[in-house]
Amino acid sequence: MDYSSKSLEDLVIAFSKLPGIGLKSAQRMALHLLEAGKEESEHLAQTILALKENVRACTICFNLTEEEVCSICRSARRDKQIICVVEEPKDLMAIEKTGGFTGLYHVLGGTISPLDGVEAADLTCRQLLDRLDGTVREVIIATNPTVEGEMTAAHLHDLMLGKVDRITRIARGIPFGGALEFNDMVTVVKALEGRSDYS
Amino acid sequence: MDYSSKSLEDLVIAFSKLPGIGLKSAQRMALHLLEAGKEESEHLAQTILALKENVRACTICFNLTEEEVCSICRSARRDKQIICVVEEPKDLMAIEKTGGFTGLYHVLGGTISPLDGVEAADLTCRQLLDRLDGTVREVIIATNPTVEGEMTAAHLHDLMLGKVDRITRIARGIPFGGALEFNDMVTVVKALEGRSDYS
Repeated sequence: MDYSSKSLEDLVIAFSKLPGIGLKSAQRMALHLLEAGKEESEHLAQTILALKENVRACTICFNLTEEEVCSICRSARRDKQIICVVEEPKDLMAIEKTGGFTGLYHVLGGTISPLDGVEAADLTCRQLLDRLDGTVREVIIATNPTVEGEMTAAHLHDLMLGKVDRITRIARGIPFGGALEFNDMVTVVKALEGRSDYS
Repeated sequence: MDYSSKSLEDLVIAFSKLPGIGLKSAQRMALHLLEAGKEESEHLAQTILALKENVRACTICFNLTEEEVCSICRSARRDKQIICVVEEPKDLMAIEKTGGFTGLYHVLGGTISPLDGVEAADLTCRQLLDRLDGTVREVIIATNPTVEGEMTAAHLHDLMLGKVDRITRIARGIPFGGALEFNDMVTVVKALEGRSDYS
């Protein structure tokens, strides 16, 4: 496509490389910046650069932070007896958004995935084990219910066995608002297996 | 929402100010940049800054360009006897993408909109009139079929009357793939009015 301006074309292409952004959205975003004030463009560019500059992994849980230790690990209000293990920071954010979990986290940095050449040693499994010093009573394995997530969960379970009182796995079942008929067989089986007493 | 990193939060907010980008997309984009190489962030930031620096309006047709005169106005292959008047550069791009128009353009820079305080003097109407020097045989008014677009079209028609052989308006009708029953009354009436002999 001819944009009659190389700079515009470059930005459309750069935007379209971001996840979930097609050429049409990218074009709309670029044209918006063209019409908007110079401050908005400069602010956006600076914010993009600041991100890489400032954000790093928490030395305890590997959550994103700008300090040595993240705000969750530092908080006195969090229950230090329970650790929720997630794949990525975005999973942590999804749980935090609910406000329903008051324990600590541990971010693995991915899942074991032989096809992609990711082994347990590439994740933060070892650092998770180091955290099980007797204070921690429960580890919730909250990796996603995918093939890789389940494989990683199994591996973590084996690693931690005997080192912590309780190892749990998030429930797999029919999503809220979902219908039995529209869910795959594995989900339906898991929903039946994970049934609880009606209360 | 607590992102545990001010820089991340800033970028999510900056991205979410772009058109069509919600908080969820903005978060996905920001996390992607965090995971991607430093080069990608730097390239994106530089491209954003370059846009404002390099892009300006063509002195003839007000299309976006990085030169004095845009590539369409400079092209020897374009038919200089016909000018298509559009509201914004994005409308020009939509027409160019089809490859079905070989004439020149004129970008108005908006529409007459009393509610927003935009008058004809704020648009490039005067410059359009200056282009009608005898070479131009037809002006196609391709403003959008909205209230403002129609008002602007009517104004342009009055301005140009007698200064050019032929003044035309793009067809309004049922979009391709559309159905009569799902279109509003005005569209159906325009589709009937604009009927042509079956060939």
